[in-house]
Amino acid sequence: MQAYLDNSATTRCLECVTETVMKVMREDYGNPSSLHAKGVEAEKYVKEAKEFFAGNLKVNEKEIYFTSGGTESNNMAIIGAAMANQRAGKHLITSSVEHSSVLNTMKYLEEQGFQVTYLPVDTDGIVCLDALKEALCNETILVSVMYVNNEIGAVQPIDEIARIVRENNPGTLFHADAVQAYGKYRIYPKREGIDLLSVSGHKIHGPKGSGLLYVNEKVKIRPVMFGGGQQRGLRSGTENVPGIAGIAEAAKACYRNLDKETERLYALKERFAEGIRGLEGTKINGKSGRESAPHIVSVSFRDIRSEVLLHALEEKGVYVSAGSACSSNKPSVSRTLQSIGVEKELLESTLRFSFSFETAEEEIDYCLEALSGLLPVLRRYVRR
Amino acid sequence: MQAYLDNSATTRCLECVTETVMKVMREDYGNPSSLHAKGVEAEKYVKEAKEFFAGNLKVNEKEIYFTSGGTESNNMAIIGAAMANQRAGKHLITSSVEHSSVLNTMKYLEEQGFQVTYLPVDTDGIVCLDALKEALCNETILVSVMYVNNEIGAVQPIDEIARIVRENNPGTLFHADAVQAYGKYRIYPKREGIDLLSVSGHKIHGPKGSGLLYVNEKVKIRPVMFGGGQQRGLRSGTENVPGIAGIAEAAKACYRNLDKETERLYALKERFAEGIRGLEGTKINGKSGRESAPHIVSVSFRDIRSEVLLHALEEKGVYVSAGSACSSNKPSVSRTLQSIGVEKELLESTLRFSFSFETAEEEIDYCLEALSGLLPVLRRYVRR
Repeated sequence: MQAYLDNSATTRCLECVTETVMKVMREDYGNPSSLHAKGVEAEKYVKEAKEFFAGNLKVNEKEIYFTSGGTESNNMAIIGAAMANQRAGKHLITSSVEHSSVLNTMKYLEEQGFQVTYLPVDTDGIVCLDALKEALCNETILVSVMYVNNEIGAVQPIDEIARIVRENNPGTLFHADAVQAYGKYRIYPKREGIDLLSVSGHKIHGPKGSGLLYVNEKVKIRPVMFGGGQQRGLRSGTENVPGIAGIAEAAKACYRNLDKETERLYALKERFAEGIRGLEGTKINGKSGRESAPHIVSVSFRDIRSEVLLHALEEKGVYVSAGSACSSNKPSVSRTLQSIGVEKELLESTLRFSFSFETAEEEIDYCLEALSGLLPVLRRYVRR
Repeated sequence: MQAYLDNSATTRCLECVTETVMKVMREDYGNPSSLHAKGVEAEKYVKEAKEFFAGNLKVNEKEIYFTSGGTESNNMAIIGAAMANQRAGKHLITSSVEHSSVLNTMKYLEEQGFQVTYLPVDTDGIVCLDALKEALCNETILVSVMYVNNEIGAVQPIDEIARIVRENNPGTLFHADAVQAYGKYRIYPKREGIDLLSVSGHKIHGPKGSGLLYVNEKVKIRPVMFGGGQQRGLRSGTENVPGIAGIAEAAKACYRNLDKETERLYALKERFAEGIRGLEGTKINGKSGRESAPHIVSVSFRDIRSEVLLHALEEKGVYVSAGSACSSNKPSVSRTLQSIGVEKELLESTLRFSFSFETAEEEIDYCLEALSGLLPVLRRYVRR
């Protein structure tokens, strides 16, 4: 038995996605920029993918840009918006619990002379709105807050944040990193006041190396990649047609039975949380019910180092993450856990369990069973 | 019958590439940054790909960085080198016949306060070395010249350029865009004095959305994408494992029988060139023998607009490019053709025919046959 509970690190491609990618690679291999039929065939996939995402997000096709993944989307949104709008001001706002592709992009912009405010969060990981109100000023050109936190599943009050940003200054842009939210939530950027939205393919059972950025057509951003002028000049480079067809296929599958699947996921999560609560010396970080994302549970295990437990679980075929795990394998203390005030002894005793629409109840039960067997043994024999 | 003679725009994936990509998507879907077995499995592909490319280029594994394609590689090399070394000077040198992902990146850097010299080329498209010597100065931090020109197949004197650059100032970096050369030539950056080398996957029968950049370990470049610190912090973002495995598989196939295949390609090219010379009102641009690349032939057709001929050939199942064709479908007058002094009436009467190891002799003959039928008809009936 295996239990892959690391779906927030990456997901397995759906078979329909793999089939689509294969078909494009085998048959429709043209360059979308070519003027002949082979190019037109390839371009059709790009057009259809744009149409799908435009419909799914209720935006215009020309507001969809394909990228190489969530990291590129976040970089493109933040650097692009900052560089294009710096005459209006050089102040940026983000939260202290963002993904490293947002935080490190902000750090880069600080080196370029921008001022960045990092908003604190409460013990559930929710951005402090009063701090946002206080931070906003005439110089603020961009606010970037993630939709769902990748470590504890906190869902940010995106609508409220957007409203506050708009009320302060209608010119301030709002970017939402929706990498962990897209495919789980219905997201309508225009209705929610989101100007820029990042999505990643491999978090939704799509191909690695695929992603997209929604850019409101009224928003001016500067490209971060220069070349042949593909994608309206905003993202040059031959389009990754198989990847684009694949991410669209994955997204379609995610939204096909969204409500039913989400219900099932919340039930799994509740089952898991209950099981965890029954284990001694455990603590779920952040909210654990329906106010948080259906697929992420962060658990601290008193007196057990996360890596020890991670590898013990691995031996039993249970795959999970220590901390955020999409920052390249150097384990470091999680900023999110620190920001929500997890006690010091638990910071390095925390694992993330993350589910997907493919996760089976048996996997949850198997993981709980493994934990209940391992915890007492590890506590007895492994010295911290 | 079909003849796909647009291999410099993009190539069909080899079946072994498609199979590899499929296998990784289906079975080895982990995130290389994950600490558990699924991550380790995925990381193995990245490591093996690095090992292959390091051996193939005779460089170190840690000098190989995977990107989303040639455009990103060129951007990363040029912006990265310029930004990291601007204290030593703000002068850059490139040629007038580079790909748009080099030229437009240079234009961006001009906006950022860099000075760029665009070297002229001779009538065969070869960079003028005297102009290079003249342009080099103490302020020159980077020279970027392509290995093989994508429009006419001119092969630049890379070794000589590198030597001249080094002699002027050992600190000046030399970047070679090898997107059209890799897979056709044996390239050894260290021996040739190349500090940065760009490669694209989809030009060598690999996956779209894959590429790599060789960065000499002594060379300092600044990342252009910020995030989780993957790939030694120089290129953040979850690695596109299927793409990386795929580009390695493609490269292996290209180099397996390189000499034999190259011979065959030159024979095909000669057969094609001879056929073209036998057609009235045609002119091959640049060199056409073994001094130019084995896979690219640029032909001007007097009194026929390139798009008209392109679509007439398309109707017969022959796929070629007008101009460079990897700059997003707006046809514009080719910089390369202008730079080599193609007469004005022929600028918009030029097609590029590009071959690959998969091109069959029958395709060449079929294309020549189609041309010989079409040219007189088009000249008679289509008004310019």
